[in-house]
Amino acid sequence: VVVVLDVLRATTTIAYALQAGCRDIIPVEDISEAMRLADTLGKDRTLLCGERGGQKIPGFHLGNSPLEYTPQVVEGKTRLLTTTNGTRALVVAQGAEVLTGSFVNLSMVAARAVADERDLLLLCAGRESRFSLEDTVCAGGLLSRLPEGMYELSDAAVVAAALYRRHSDDLLGMMRASQHGRYLVSLGLERDLSVAAAVDALPVVGRLCEGKVVKA
Amino acid sequence: VVVVLDVLRATTTIAYALQAGCRDIIPVEDISEAMRLADTLGKDRTLLCGERGGQKIPGFHLGNSPLEYTPQVVEGKTRLLTTTNGTRALVVAQGAEVLTGSFVNLSMVAARAVADERDLLLLCAGRESRFSLEDTVCAGGLLSRLPEGMYELSDAAVVAAALYRRHSDDLLGMMRASQHGRYLVSLGLERDLSVAAAVDALPVVGRLCEGKVVKA
Repeated sequence: VVVVLDVLRATTTIAYALQAGCRDIIPVEDISEAMRLADTLGKDRTLLCGERGGQKIPGFHLGNSPLEYTPQVVEGKTRLLTTTNGTRALVVAQGAEVLTGSFVNLSMVAARAVADERDLLLLCAGRESRFSLEDTVCAGGLLSRLPEGMYELSDAAVVAAALYRRHSDDLLGMMRASQHGRYLVSLGLERDLSVAAAVDALPVVGRLCEGKVVKA
Repeated sequence: VVVVLDVLRATTTIAYALQAGCRDIIPVEDISEAMRLADTLGKDRTLLCGERGGQKIPGFHLGNSPLEYTPQVVEGKTRLLTTTNGTRALVVAQGAEVLTGSFVNLSMVAARAVADERDLLLLCAGRESRFSLEDTVCAGGLLSRLPEGMYELSDAAVVAAALYRRHSDDLLGMMRASQHGRYLVSLGLERDLSVAAAVDALPVVGRLCEGKVVKA
């Protein structure tokens, strides 16, 4: 079982889209592929969504802010999503049993991840292939919700769990101090950090199924 | 400037070999290349050194334990070194100004790393491309010895510095608890952990120069 974590913001936004009634989300790696798919599937049933450098892609319907994904906008639609880090992680992970996790659905994802009693990989999307604090802390939060002693932990998992214990009282402050959080604040997207830090705000889990993320 | 860190054990052993009078160390990725180089350079002036799975390679002169590298054995010799993680990191890093760091020469490496006032990459060799606790803590120790405010820190650097503060009182305990440390203890190599945990035991820094590690 692989849990893909891209707290800022792809997997948070996926949770919001699913909760708002979005039919499914297709992660795609590049912009031209997203546009081609929109043509194939029909423009009336798809939404072009995503970001480059944190900002909405010109000509696309939606960016990568969770609060854009309201029922009026997304209900029943297929969302074609291309982002810098999160969709890449989803594409890499295909083939395994893949869930999308974030703080907003942490406990539900943890419950779902252990249900199969299989090996568990927490895939932190990071930022341009580098370590990111917020995804690692989220992985630690997920670990803290697993039954004690059920898994043998890697060094990385032990550190993630310790980081979560250290930051769990102030997840928003942790995100504001992180590299990616500071960058989003500089773009005027501070509200996305508050949304992403709301633990267990949404009762929904995404699951990758034949290339599409659907409600688990 | 790149500092390659493979505390258990390649960069620790490199420090010991240089201190014992070894002429230079050539990192090579595979066993057959090491044997071919020994033939080319002459068997009387070279030593075949390294490990696979933590254990000495059959037919090689030395394994990867720091205490094997005594002046009687290595003085004036060229050491052909192939290990699972550390030599790979050294090969990858070639082209930059590369130093080899470990706890045993932490302060000297830090002083040397800042001397050029250039961007600094701390390359934790890890274990089979994965995160390792001991290399990250060592990176944090190096960061703690840099002038405050001289560098802008990545998320990974901030976490490494925090991990060092947490473990600096008991580096040996940290290594014993780490995945790689536990593995080496299971091979009967616990003494290598004690040697690797001795901060600033050796006044020597390795520097990669035309494919060879020499005294900086």
